[in-house]
Amino acid sequence: MLKSTLAIDVSGGDHGAQVTVPAAINFLRKNKTATVKLVGIEQQIKPFIVKLPHQLLQRIEVVAANEVVAMDEQPGIALRRKRNSSMRIALDLVKSNVADACVSSGNTGALMAMAHFVLKTIKGLDRPAIMGMFPTRGESEINILDLGANVSATSNNLLQFALLASIIVKTIHGTNPKVALLNVGHEDIKGTQEIKDAAVKIAQHESINYVGYVEADKVFLNYADIIVCDGFVGNVMLKACEGMVTLMYSKIKAAIYNSPIFAFLARGILRKILHQAFVNYSTEHRSGALFVGLNGIVVKSHGNAGISAFEHAIELAYKYSLASKKDSYNDKVKSLFCAEELA
Amino acid sequence: MLKSTLAIDVSGGDHGAQVTVPAAINFLRKNKTATVKLVGIEQQIKPFIVKLPHQLLQRIEVVAANEVVAMDEQPGIALRRKRNSSMRIALDLVKSNVADACVSSGNTGALMAMAHFVLKTIKGLDRPAIMGMFPTRGESEINILDLGANVSATSNNLLQFALLASIIVKTIHGTNPKVALLNVGHEDIKGTQEIKDAAVKIAQHESINYVGYVEADKVFLNYADIIVCDGFVGNVMLKACEGMVTLMYSKIKAAIYNSPIFAFLARGILRKILHQAFVNYSTEHRSGALFVGLNGIVVKSHGNAGISAFEHAIELAYKYSLASKKDSYNDKVKSLFCAEELA
Repeated sequence: MLKSTLAIDVSGGDHGAQVTVPAAINFLRKNKTATVKLVGIEQQIKPFIVKLPHQLLQRIEVVAANEVVAMDEQPGIALRRKRNSSMRIALDLVKSNVADACVSSGNTGALMAMAHFVLKTIKGLDRPAIMGMFPTRGESEINILDLGANVSATSNNLLQFALLASIIVKTIHGTNPKVALLNVGHEDIKGTQEIKDAAVKIAQHESINYVGYVEADKVFLNYADIIVCDGFVGNVMLKACEGMVTLMYSKIKAAIYNSPIFAFLARGILRKILHQAFVNYSTEHRSGALFVGLNGIVVKSHGNAGISAFEHAIELAYKYSLASKKDSYNDKVKSLFCAEELA
Repeated sequence: MLKSTLAIDVSGGDHGAQVTVPAAINFLRKNKTATVKLVGIEQQIKPFIVKLPHQLLQRIEVVAANEVVAMDEQPGIALRRKRNSSMRIALDLVKSNVADACVSSGNTGALMAMAHFVLKTIKGLDRPAIMGMFPTRGESEINILDLGANVSATSNNLLQFALLASIIVKTIHGTNPKVALLNVGHEDIKGTQEIKDAAVKIAQHESINYVGYVEADKVFLNYADIIVCDGFVGNVMLKACEGMVTLMYSKIKAAIYNSPIFAFLARGILRKILHQAFVNYSTEHRSGALFVGLNGIVVKSHGNAGISAFEHAIELAYKYSLASKKDSYNDKVKSLFCAEELA
């Protein structure tokens, strides 16, 4: 049976160990062959694990760090000065192959800068990207990149993102994923020159199953498995959706609670139904985006992730690390980029 | 009492006269001093108005057009060849001051190209933009531009959008609106160079009440009255929100209908509550965006707008035309742009 060890930056994020350590313990309870390295300030971790049963404790190693990257710290400064931070040590464990993947809810810019520096970009690739997975209207998930590693993207960057994501998704799901480019219309004449050029390059690439442009209102309609865009647009789309889900949830809750009938009747059941409808779309219950294009697996969780959202990010890192062991996509990506001229 | 005449392109959009004419009639019933010019294929209009009472009929003039701009027609071709189209004639009526505003649910690109050509851009302004109004979490509405007139924007374009929107919103609401720039973070270092340069220019401009960057998940939280971005990003954000609202609505309806209790109990009431919560956010019930920066008022409705959504767009055009008569913002905009060096 495949095993995997995850390095978890438990002192990062808005809430630190009080969220990340319980999330890691929940994860270990569900995944019996996984082991974790909890990297962070030791005395913050200990209270949460001291009373755990032996079979859990033996799958946990505490790796002491004596500093933490602040959520508002400049990435460049964090990179130069925070070499003993929980974030940096967790990444170093992946670099040295002690861990198979790293999970952090810390400062995104600092995590990307450090991951880039420690793990390096895959040879032949110009820029790494951030890829998120989202539930759609149907059963499947959709993968969207870039969600914010780069504020702009050339047509070559977009082509490389499409290639990277295709290999990763194919490794995990087996089938060749459909790739779409995010645009403001489905017609050929729409969009910026970079997008039009990217469409030509992606359509010509034999390893990519390209299906054309997709507009943002159709992203969740199972039109494609992978949506490619620059990091500015992706970040705006992601956050707009999150903001809209939060707004809709509060509007519906208020409408139901203001109804005199439902004030007395079945409020508990309604709350449960609402929860079920929203759970997959809310950042309260899911988080985690993959840094793609690096020589190692790094999953970023939301800074304000709660226990179940952070656990979701750990699960994602676990899934990717197992998939990469079974059918190494990093090697595939490397060989593809090295073999090709992406002019 | 102020009066206003609207030129309505009734043959445009996915559904043509069967949606647009009933919407116009509903609008006239609610606004007793308004008059409309229904511009379109005459025999398509007649069946809907032939039996109307005299007091409504006298506020309606049918203006015959013998062709229609197709929804997938190239804007340049529509501009050159469709001079007798319902869209073009409706715009010509604004140009010649016969109508105070134009409403169309036709091809956006063609409408912008024709409006630009017929009405011309305000002197001193580089590019027109599309501004939409959206409900927020609170009582107020938020104005977002550009929603797709331009696929990119320079820092000067963004400054001009901020100025235009400030003058328009101030004319309508009286108070000086707060302006924010859409970005991927709130820190100064975030975003593209164009956005960072725009932030400096907007902050220095004495007519703009600038409040800083806003992220897409906070757009609907009443942080600002106006959100400025380029047309690609704005279009993606708008459509992502629309898609997410549709998805959430279907998920919640399904969850409620699958509940054995609610299958028998109070389903009608629940449906009403859901409708109330979603109505303001759904494109089924609202549509309409203002073309800003032209010498005339043009409101674009969704191509697939139904009767109540198209009526909403007519109401918007009416509101803007009355406001411009009371306190002419077009004159203000013109004098501002002519007086300034927007280097």
